Amino acid sequence: MNYLEQLNELQLKELEKQYKILSYGVDAIIPEEEFKQKIAKSIWQDQPLKVKLGLDPTAPDVHIGHTVVLNKLKQFQELGHTIQLIIGDFTGKIGDPTGKATARKALTDDEVRYNAKTYFEQFGKVIDMDAVELHYNAQWLSKVDFAEVLQLASNVTVARMLERNDFHNRYNANKPIYLHEFFYPVMQGYDSHILESDIELGGTDQEFNVLFGRQVQEQFGQEKQVVLLLPLIEGLDGVEKMSKSKNNYIGIDERPNDIFGKTMSIPDELIVKYFELASNLSIDEVTLIKEHLQKDMLHPRDAKIRLALSFVEMLYDSKTAEQSKKHFFNVFQKNQIPSDMPEVIWDKEDQIGIVDLVKYLELLPSKSEVRRMIKNGGIRINQEKVMDPAFTVSVSDGLVLQVGKRKFIKLKLASS
Amino acid sequence: MNYLEQLNELQLKELEKQYKILSYGVDAIIPEEEFKQKIAKSIWQDQPLKVKLGLDPTAPDVHIGHTVVLNKLKQFQELGHTIQLIIGDFTGKIGDPTGKATARKALTDDEVRYNAKTYFEQFGKVIDMDAVELHYNAQWLSKVDFAEVLQLASNVTVARMLERNDFHNRYNANKPIYLHEFFYPVMQGYDSHILESDIELGGTDQEFNVLFGRQVQEQFGQEKQVVLLLPLIEGLDGVEKMSKSKNNYIGIDERPNDIFGKTMSIPDELIVKYFELASNLSIDEVTLIKEHLQKDMLHPRDAKIRLALSFVEMLYDSKTAEQSKKHFFNVFQKNQIPSDMPEVIWDKEDQIGIVDLVKYLELLPSKSEVRRMIKNGGIRINQEKVMDPAFTVSVSDGLVLQVGKRKFIKLKLASS
Repeated sequence: MNYLEQLNELQLKELEKQYKILSYGVDAIIPEEEFKQKIAKSIWQDQPLKVKLGLDPTAPDVHIGHTVVLNKLKQFQELGHTIQLIIGDFTGKIGDPTGKATARKALTDDEVRYNAKTYFEQFGKVIDMDAVELHYNAQWLSKVDFAEVLQLASNVTVARMLERNDFHNRYNANKPIYLHEFFYPVMQGYDSHILESDIELGGTDQEFNVLFGRQVQEQFGQEKQVVLLLPLIEGLDGVEKMSKSKNNYIGIDERPNDIFGKTMSIPDELIVKYFELASNLSIDEVTLIKEHLQKDMLHPRDAKIRLALSFVEMLYDSKTAEQSKKHFFNVFQKNQIPSDMPEVIWDKEDQIGIVDLVKYLELLPSKSEVRRMIKNGGIRINQEKVMDPAFTVSVSDGLVLQVGKRKFIKLKLASS
Repeated sequence: MNYLEQLNELQLKELEKQYKILSYGVDAIIPEEEFKQKIAKSIWQDQPLKVKLGLDPTAPDVHIGHTVVLNKLKQFQELGHTIQLIIGDFTGKIGDPTGKATARKALTDDEVRYNAKTYFEQFGKVIDMDAVELHYNAQWLSKVDFAEVLQLASNVTVARMLERNDFHNRYNANKPIYLHEFFYPVMQGYDSHILESDIELGGTDQEFNVLFGRQVQEQFGQEKQVVLLLPLIEGLDGVEKMSKSKNNYIGIDERPNDIFGKTMSIPDELIVKYFELASNLSIDEVTLIKEHLQKDMLHPRDAKIRLALSFVEMLYDSKTAEQSKKHFFNVFQKNQIPSDMPEVIWDKEDQIGIVDLVKYLELLPSKSEVRRMIKNGGIRINQEKVMDPAFTVSVSDGLVLQVGKRKFIKLKLASS
């Protein structure tokens, strides 16, 4: 049935509106025509779409890169659709050795629950978690027996699996692919079958896995889900994809001042992409900012301030956003000492070399980094630049150590 | 523990005796040293070895080619070891599409039981079925859950699977390999784990599958089975492996006269191989026959008579063997009409062309085959050669039609 043909003028307008919002910033919709049909069906039947996102419970650290997907979920939510969050606890409990030299340690039930909770807390900063359907896939996957596994597997060719980029590369490089790894897309697809998902979201690196759901649903005679692939954004360095392991991320859980400061440090080329994908500004607002930047009506630095404000607003509130902006100008622009900063209780020697002190406080990763920083004038004691790496610090109560633009530590003597 | 070092002189003699018998005619023992240890352990602990053979319940037709394995099982049995026959009903019920254009239809429970019974009846002609352990692998495989499947699979690399000849060839020829096919060796290996098999027998074409049991047993921390690979023998044509589909086989269920006659038709080059692998003659007897043939002290025809007698003796008894020998000489050597032959009730026309008659009775596959046979003087009516393909037969009660050397039919008139 062609639902598009069923809609009246008003409904068609609604369809166009939803399609515009939901397809905005998306890297690929597979297949595009079916997506329109899904929305049309939802409008015609007055039924929300079931929009699935699978989560790996082994890595619960959420960063601004994830807000690309979260913002898309939020749009679906605001248009009345249902979000299905799947915690892949079955997978997590087994341990996925993908790309690892040794198999990853399987998670316990408690670890999975804890990690899931961490996800939900962080997700709650962007989407309405009360309106979300939560699922743990061990609930159904643990009940699948060998015969059913073989039935699922009989629908998949080895060649098809080896088409997947990472498998293909590993196979050609004679790196082992373990047979159970082939089941990760199969399990993910089985989730879509059980939940009868209409839509599945995923990063572009998830294309193979999320597309697989279509195949499994078809095997069970269901209507196939439509896949929305979302771009991965580069991290603060502007080169690598944002990730915890690359240390180029803005964590959703970070303090407002850090979020603001980190956002101010992104390369200018990323400003528009971050606005489009990671911020929660409306399409119209982003379009305007883009236009003003292009016409030099907006300075990149001011655009970044707007972006940084929007991130803190999204993750905290507008008052906090204004405060972190003020903090940023105090510290980075005027090079003042911030009003509050971390304090460290000092119970070591009174006299310590500057290099040892900075290294001891773990403000820089190595002593050679400390020496380089001193050479660049990046280390201050009570606002005075330290010029000599051999300088000996006489520690006094309330001494303020500054490393680079943003790191401040106040030493408190243990005895005082 | 090195069991070889534990044995006394008498036990070492027993070891040597068993090793000589059990390794005789075997294509490969993997690994050979472990096989000696297995026998030594069995002698030292006075415990029988568990000797496994897996059976595919989809193809229960047993032929002389299978006696290669059956005779080996018999030798194990006679030395006091335990035979474990596994009916792969779990596999059979799922349907294995290996090498098929479309997936094979899954068998029902009844079909599996019926096929298993057929196996057992035929096997009973060679081995003592009362002393055999019978197992149906659905008993344990149907209880394996997804998590355990993944654990099993995590021990297998895709590259390892693609090393298997048929997979390798299909992959390179872009022919689909379905993912569940990779589980056939895994399941077979799991059987070895459950049954704690010491030895597994298989044809050389089964090398990959039977070796796999070692890997699964190791995964479960068990002692690994030793694999005995048995040669596949060529069929009556002396070229292709004996198989039902090639119609070059001697069926274990065939009538004594047919077994004798077919054995007499094998090419001389196969005589020794058949003696060694398919007959149940002792090593000493076969060695003698081999020697006599080499020294021209034994005519190949007489060796074949000895072989044919041994087959009928093995599958029936010595009296029947002598009768089938007599029958053979009556029919083929002196070209006499056998004393008993199949009768067909004739209720068709009195006059029929010889080509139509032979084709109608399905004695030859095509009319052109009939014409060729007439040209070669291979068709007789009441012992008279038919020379003309256009010859019209006047059917009378008791008319004897002979096609080739061995096919006789007597026509009985329906009216008489």
